[in-house]
Amino acid sequence: MENGMEETLMFDKSLLSRIDFEERSKAKFHPAASPSNPGDSLVLRPLSTADFERGYCQLLSGLTIVGEVTPEKYLATFNAMKETGIYYATVVEDTSRNLIVATATLILEQKFIHECALRGRIEEVVVNKDYRGQQLGKLLMSVLTLLSQDLGCYKTTLECAESNIPFYEKFGYVKDKEVYMQNRH
Amino acid sequence: MENGMEETLMFDKSLLSRIDFEERSKAKFHPAASPSNPGDSLVLRPLSTADFERGYCQLLSGLTIVGEVTPEKYLATFNAMKETGIYYATVVEDTSRNLIVATATLILEQKFIHECALRGRIEEVVVNKDYRGQQLGKLLMSVLTLLSQDLGCYKTTLECAESNIPFYEKFGYVKDKEVYMQNRH
Repeated sequence: MENGMEETLMFDKSLLSRIDFEERSKAKFHPAASPSNPGDSLVLRPLSTADFERGYCQLLSGLTIVGEVTPEKYLATFNAMKETGIYYATVVEDTSRNLIVATATLILEQKFIHECALRGRIEEVVVNKDYRGQQLGKLLMSVLTLLSQDLGCYKTTLECAESNIPFYEKFGYVKDKEVYMQNRH
Repeated sequence: MENGMEETLMFDKSLLSRIDFEERSKAKFHPAASPSNPGDSLVLRPLSTADFERGYCQLLSGLTIVGEVTPEKYLATFNAMKETGIYYATVVEDTSRNLIVATATLILEQKFIHECALRGRIEEVVVNKDYRGQQLGKLLMSVLTLLSQDLGCYKTTLECAESNIPFYEKFGYVKDKEVYMQNRH
């Protein structure tokens, strides 16, 4: 760790490059953008162990409380997530600054219903405020929605602020009649 | 399989009996009921491999489309869920009929936020219509909410029909300001 964390990815990055993005993305990009071409000096890829040092947790703190996450705790959590094979934490790195500037995570949930189907959930969607208006949230949402479909999910769901409904509608999400309830312990 | 499936539980059943239920349950039971005493000829326990033959999938079909689930597919799905260690599918069996009459599942989700916390989700809550009014849904919801807390979750969430909000409020759930969106593929 003295010389930087080893670069281990949370999932196979070819899953992202394999998506036939231009053909299938419901959201339109102006200027053109895709997973393999997110913008100047930007790279879209799976979360890496070394992203702890690239400010991944600071980025998440734009979303909610992150608290103190040590490198050891980050690695243990990363490894636990990777081991299950159901977490697809995806990031955009600005390689000119060695900085994670956007992220979203797809999580697969196994069901017995629908002939033992998978269901996708999208969580922790956040873009660094200096990088807003550069279509990075749109790119991540579009790619993770297609990835969820490619991985066999019969549906993908998320929870969002009322004001963000129009954003998510771009990718085919619709407000459901079910309501979201929570219980804080 | 000729002589019935082997009885393997999805998770350690002592997790249920260890819950200090009477002290902590927010919902009240009349007549008295608890995980160790759900009612005459009823047993509350983790889902078992053999529950395929006790009508677990038929029970789920009261909730949504289950489709054709073969014993092999059930077992493969069961084992995949068990292996991750994050699925707590819980059932009530009527032992006098060898029948699963109620179920609910708690699923744990790993986060980096909140100091790498766990979040609980409750899914697939369903009670056989002949067994409604016997507090079984209430018992399952109460026990899984406490289990989620005992397993270290900072919150537990679920989605439900508007008409079921009062039911879930009994266990401390409140309607969140976030909205639930879905995308069917």
